[in-house]
Amino acid sequence: MIILVDMDDVLADFEGEFFNRWRAQYPDKPYVALEDRTIFNIENQYPEDLRELVKSIYNAPGFCKSLKPIDGSLESVLEMQNEGHEVYICTAPLTVYENCVLEKYQWAEQHLGLEWVKKIILTRDKTLVRGDFLIDDKPEVTGAAQPVWEHILFNKAYNKNVTGKRRLATLKDWKTILTKP
Amino acid sequence: MIILVDMDDVLADFEGEFFNRWRAQYPDKPYVALEDRTIFNIENQYPEDLRELVKSIYNAPGFCKSLKPIDGSLESVLEMQNEGHEVYICTAPLTVYENCVLEKYQWAEQHLGLEWVKKIILTRDKTLVRGDFLIDDKPEVTGAAQPVWEHILFNKAYNKNVTGKRRLATLKDWKTILTKP
Repeated sequence: MIILVDMDDVLADFEGEFFNRWRAQYPDKPYVALEDRTIFNIENQYPEDLRELVKSIYNAPGFCKSLKPIDGSLESVLEMQNEGHEVYICTAPLTVYENCVLEKYQWAEQHLGLEWVKKIILTRDKTLVRGDFLIDDKPEVTGAAQPVWEHILFNKAYNKNVTGKRRLATLKDWKTILTKP
Repeated sequence: MIILVDMDDVLADFEGEFFNRWRAQYPDKPYVALEDRTIFNIENQYPEDLRELVKSIYNAPGFCKSLKPIDGSLESVLEMQNEGHEVYICTAPLTVYENCVLEKYQWAEQHLGLEWVKKIILTRDKTLVRGDFLIDDKPEVTGAAQPVWEHILFNKAYNKNVTGKRRLATLKDWKTILTKP
């Protein structure tokens, strides 16, 4: 099988790092707890006058590189590969690309090794990538083409109301997706 | 149609820039003229003791960003898009990814505009990308999957002996590929 795995909030804890930095840097500003996140783009759940500040957190140099691996994610992609599947990290750069592009490569090298740098597919449009499965936290993954993969929704607070898709709460359960429903 | 266009040596003059820098920086060292290039990877056509030096040229900071657009390439991809095709820049990072990854994005922004940054698909394996055509100078484009696109070979000295593929000598002639043989 070809398994495409999203990076932010599937492999790497983008939401958690944002939350920690936001609270540390702006302890007096309002915040949205992780379990209360209802909108995919973080800034859209903050008051309009704080949105640029929100974006300045995750667009900062070093942010993407510093993300902690989500529990179980690294072992799971290695396991997928060891069991003979083709695994790729399929990730979209942030709109402000200057820092994240290189840092995504550095993150993969640091946490998974240089071999995994070759498995990165950096694209804004994931519908153009071929695979059997795309494991992604984004509620709807759309683009120029009709996707050939099945979107497996990776559980997050902001996608909990999405229906009609198979889900993973953790990558450790990845084998359950292999059994077609 | 979905048209995937390679970056190095289709849109951007990687070979030319390498040659100019090599001659300027090492005027006393042997060199391979552009028309005598027979091997896709430049360093493999140089004596073994010069290969690290060759690589140090194209892996240098600023190299990828400084590449000149190949004559006609920018107008042609804009024309493809204006005529209703979906055009993507499908490009593989160099093995030493530290400089080229970000610089490829900067190159696209500088020469084509921010909108085209969103059209970059950065992948080592182009067979995983869907499209009708891939315009690429690499003699053989292989990977994990059987490609769904037709490889249109972009003429370079090092691919002149490849047979069995349709070719473009310049992107200006791109419309000729639309007529299926």
